[in-house]
Amino acid sequence: MVLESKIPVPANSGFGIQNLPYCIFSTYGSELRAGMALGDSIIDLGALAQSGVFDGLHSGIATTLNEATLNNYISLGKEITNAVRLKVQALFSVGNSELSDFEQYLFNKDIVIFHLPIAIGDYTDFYSSKYHAYNVGVMFRGAENALMPNYLHLPVGYHGRASSIVVSGTPLHRPWGQVKPVDATEPIFTTSKQLDFELEMAYVIGKENGLGNPVTTSEAADYVFGFMLFNDWSARDIQSWEYVPLGPFLGKNFGSSLAPFIVTAEALEGAKTDLNTQEPAVLPYLQVDPKSAYDIDLEVIIKPEAGEETIISKSNTKYLYWSVTQQIAHHSVNGCNLRIGDLYASGTISAPEETGYGSMLELTWRGTKPLKLSDGTERKFINDSDTVIMRAYAQANGERIGFGEVATTILPAIANKWEKIK
Amino acid sequence: MVLESKIPVPANSGFGIQNLPYCIFSTYGSELRAGMALGDSIIDLGALAQSGVFDGLHSGIATTLNEATLNNYISLGKEITNAVRLKVQALFSVGNSELSDFEQYLFNKDIVIFHLPIAIGDYTDFYSSKYHAYNVGVMFRGAENALMPNYLHLPVGYHGRASSIVVSGTPLHRPWGQVKPVDATEPIFTTSKQLDFELEMAYVIGKENGLGNPVTTSEAADYVFGFMLFNDWSARDIQSWEYVPLGPFLGKNFGSSLAPFIVTAEALEGAKTDLNTQEPAVLPYLQVDPKSAYDIDLEVIIKPEAGEETIISKSNTKYLYWSVTQQIAHHSVNGCNLRIGDLYASGTISAPEETGYGSMLELTWRGTKPLKLSDGTERKFINDSDTVIMRAYAQANGERIGFGEVATTILPAIANKWEKIK
Repeated sequence: MVLESKIPVPANSGFGIQNLPYCIFSTYGSELRAGMALGDSIIDLGALAQSGVFDGLHSGIATTLNEATLNNYISLGKEITNAVRLKVQALFSVGNSELSDFEQYLFNKDIVIFHLPIAIGDYTDFYSSKYHAYNVGVMFRGAENALMPNYLHLPVGYHGRASSIVVSGTPLHRPWGQVKPVDATEPIFTTSKQLDFELEMAYVIGKENGLGNPVTTSEAADYVFGFMLFNDWSARDIQSWEYVPLGPFLGKNFGSSLAPFIVTAEALEGAKTDLNTQEPAVLPYLQVDPKSAYDIDLEVIIKPEAGEETIISKSNTKYLYWSVTQQIAHHSVNGCNLRIGDLYASGTISAPEETGYGSMLELTWRGTKPLKLSDGTERKFINDSDTVIMRAYAQANGERIGFGEVATTILPAIANKWEKIK
Repeated sequence: MVLESKIPVPANSGFGIQNLPYCIFSTYGSELRAGMALGDSIIDLGALAQSGVFDGLHSGIATTLNEATLNNYISLGKEITNAVRLKVQALFSVGNSELSDFEQYLFNKDIVIFHLPIAIGDYTDFYSSKYHAYNVGVMFRGAENALMPNYLHLPVGYHGRASSIVVSGTPLHRPWGQVKPVDATEPIFTTSKQLDFELEMAYVIGKENGLGNPVTTSEAADYVFGFMLFNDWSARDIQSWEYVPLGPFLGKNFGSSLAPFIVTAEALEGAKTDLNTQEPAVLPYLQVDPKSAYDIDLEVIIKPEAGEETIISKSNTKYLYWSVTQQIAHHSVNGCNLRIGDLYASGTISAPEETGYGSMLELTWRGTKPLKLSDGTERKFINDSDTVIMRAYAQANGERIGFGEVATTILPAIANKWEKIK
């Protein structure tokens, strides 16, 4: 049976009756609670739960859908959360008359305030686009040694900063930091001149394994609650001076930006596609079902202050070399415990062709080939007052599955504190 | 006035009336609550607060001292938490008769269960011992290139895993992982053969700066609630294969171990000493008061199963090249927000002489010079069933300030899950 939404869903909205992604929202002066996107509306899940429509599923639903994060709700487990989502899908489908006053649970998305939907425990960033790793390798080490010897054997990853992850719409200041210019003998203290985005897809952990209990690739899908579009901001000049030998630190932790919505793993089931061929063959603990990749179109836009949008990159999650299930199996193979609310990201998702590179570093080849925007201005990296916008869409069950957007405006560096001591 | 404890404090206990470190404890079947160590006792701060002795200081004290972590208590701010500690100090000092039934608030430390005293937000590990960085550099790159070019210009650090940090006494399994033996052409899946400890001192963040608001070196001390002894377990063979180019990951995140006690920054004020000379001079944003180091003696012990303890290393926190205040200023200089409950660690603290190296990697020089234990057995790295114990003591105000111990037994690798797929 083809489901049809009771409320109008604009063409290409991405928020049809098959998607129903979660968010945390408030309206002016109200408490934070859970919501779901449908068309141009946000369904007030908190109020809906209090009306009793989920009674009988689990006694904890009304409480957990009226909290400031989804962590406790997710903790109820997929059996419950999937049942809630299917119930909402039924209630808002044509032909269902259970909820006669359904319109009282709807808010126009333009008047609500979105918040980070999870309290993030640990944040891990992978490096799973071979095209990205290759491009960066060519730039810094030459084509012969572009990929590190471990790259095709394991999904390289590192721990990132959870505290500075913000929701779409939160502006970030250009960071100060220590940088060593190529022609200088000593480092200097300055504002970053190579501020960059990274186009990534993140996922939220929805199940705990417990310390010492690895998750196999075949068990891993159960641990994924849903997916979120993610911009992992990077200051390339700070990063390149600091990162040896222990990895990125201040070049990354000044801020990362998440879209407001969690698209459930279940909504994306129809968007699965074959993982690229892995050659050499991976070790048995990393072997997976071939259909472990996702076909999700991605785009990156720069919008200058008061200017129009220019699409600067089009990529797709299918270009990732390593699957989510491989990432989870690798992350936990030593016994590392995953917790509900952990956020794991793909790493920059670059397409094979240069129109689909996932960072300014690659798109402008380290600033040597500036990008031209539709207003005629050029960019080597991101300027103050630029807004970087990312959008993502999949197709599943004949419907467009949208991820919303992650939009972040870069503000000038804060000056006052350092005037005294720089 | 010299304070004297009402209850006996054994010589060299480290838990005299000047220390009073915090912990979270329970007794069999009871709720978790806050405590303070005094002599061989744990003072039940939760019950003490409910008795009303802190009334008038802050209305939130009794609630927050009866929670499972200290985060909300620490959030009350140093003005409050210092007043609580000074009140406890007075109540348990000879000559104070306010608390006639003080013995009912005491538990013998041997019958209580200690828990992790904080919910750790983000965990950052620095690399602040120059001797350690130099030793590792010599081993992997030779003496000429031992220190990376950035080392003397900034406190190198990286983000670690918070979820797998456990309290002293929690055993850890030897991790499985992907390793590439030196003489092999392909990596293999195996249990770590180079399991190692790292002797570190960590500190707990007690104040928030907010995203975009750097903390200067002169403000930084206010952000430190207290210090905890820390063992940052490392699997060297896993680490050396995985860590390029993004840093340590599975070689570290299978577990790290904390002592149960938080020694307050105030208790350590008398243990401050001069920071080593920093040459070349650091950039202005890293300049500090010379008296920014701590003189804290450290020791590492191996205790084989049913065997006796052998002290294998004696070091001191004064050998750290970078101060805590420099670490905090650097960590936040780009606007990164520090949150209450964040844990920042020093990195391996190696003394200049080889009897004070802070890891087996250095003590046995990558396994080439095995250590002899008092039972006659030798160690290149840590064996199954070995317990690694770390202890630390400072002197302040004429009294020994102890950190308790962090003791962790290594269990054999878990076999069952991988038999099917390895």
